Amino acid sequence: MHLPSKLMQQAVDAFATLPGIGRKTALRMVLHLLKQDPELVRRFTDDIRAAREEIRECTKCFNLSDEVVCSICSDPRRDHQVICVVEGIRDVLAIEETHQYRGMYHVLGGVISPIDGIGPENLHIRELVERLQKDQVREVIMAVSPTIEGETTIYYLSKLLLPTGVRVSTIARGVSFGGELEYADEVTLGRSILARVPYSVTED
Amino acid sequence: MHLPSKLMQQAVDAFATLPGIGRKTALRMVLHLLKQDPELVRRFTDDIRAAREEIRECTKCFNLSDEVVCSICSDPRRDHQVICVVEGIRDVLAIEETHQYRGMYHVLGGVISPIDGIGPENLHIRELVERLQKDQVREVIMAVSPTIEGETTIYYLSKLLLPTGVRVSTIARGVSFGGELEYADEVTLGRSILARVPYSVTED
Repeated sequence: MHLPSKLMQQAVDAFATLPGIGRKTALRMVLHLLKQDPELVRRFTDDIRAAREEIRECTKCFNLSDEVVCSICSDPRRDHQVICVVEGIRDVLAIEETHQYRGMYHVLGGVISPIDGIGPENLHIRELVERLQKDQVREVIMAVSPTIEGETTIYYLSKLLLPTGVRVSTIARGVSFGGELEYADEVTLGRSILARVPYSVTED
Repeated sequence: MHLPSKLMQQAVDAFATLPGIGRKTALRMVLHLLKQDPELVRRFTDDIRAAREEIRECTKCFNLSDEVVCSICSDPRRDHQVICVVEGIRDVLAIEETHQYRGMYHVLGGVISPIDGIGPENLHIRELVERLQKDQVREVIMAVSPTIEGETTIYYLSKLLLPTGVRVSTIARGVSFGGELEYADEVTLGRSILARVPYSVTED
């Protein structure tokens, strides 16, 4: 696409670097911003720049944070004795969205994957062990993707953590709620039969 | 969606103001930018801000321009005696994409639409007449959408321009290339029969 304005070309190119944004969509965004008040566009770019320059990793859990310690780690209303171990920030956001968890997090920054050259020393595993020693952690919940690498990471971590006496659990795996049984993949379905749980009538 | 970082929330909100961008996609964009080099993100925001603050309307044709006169109006290799009248900048971009037109443009800034309170005085019609008087314009091509408002605008303009002796034409309307005849709407199909053209074998 050839644009008559070089400045416009640059702005379109900028938007087109974003994931999932093609040149047509980028052009639509630029044309939209050109119609906005300059002050509004300035605020738009300021907000994006501030996000990149001021957001840092929480020194405790490695979640994204505005401060040295993130809003979750510094929340006194949350349970500081339970830590949910996740691969990345997106997982924190996904779990927070459920409103079902009120404990702490620990972001590993990936999973153990020798094929990609990622060993335990490349992840925030040492810091997790330190947290366990420092805080009175009751339980560590493994909320890592059920892939080969994820399972390897869970195995490695549990070997490391269980001797400290902490309770280690993994999130439940099985068929999805609302999903049709016949479309569940066979590994999930097979394991969900092996890992069946007693049925109970709950009041809620 | 509740985000643990306020700065991140602001950046997500900023992206979510863009057309067609929901909060999930905005989040994906912010997470993408957080992984980039700060210098790159600074250039990204600079390019967008520069576009808004420095792009202006060409004083001749009202196309978007980096200079007082746009790159099309100042191109000596283009035919300055033919003016293509369009509603907006997107139309200029679409026609330029075809690589079939080497003349000038004139962006009206809309079409005559009494129901929206847009009369001829709200469009760049006076400036078009002035261009015709000043330059030696041979032909004015109407490339306005074939809607009621578009047709009204073409009618109004031709009444105004034809007395000056200039040739006025409209772009061809008919069934789309590559389209199935049976799916063409009846107005287009009916008119394309009435406006049939002699068949000729061309060499290219």
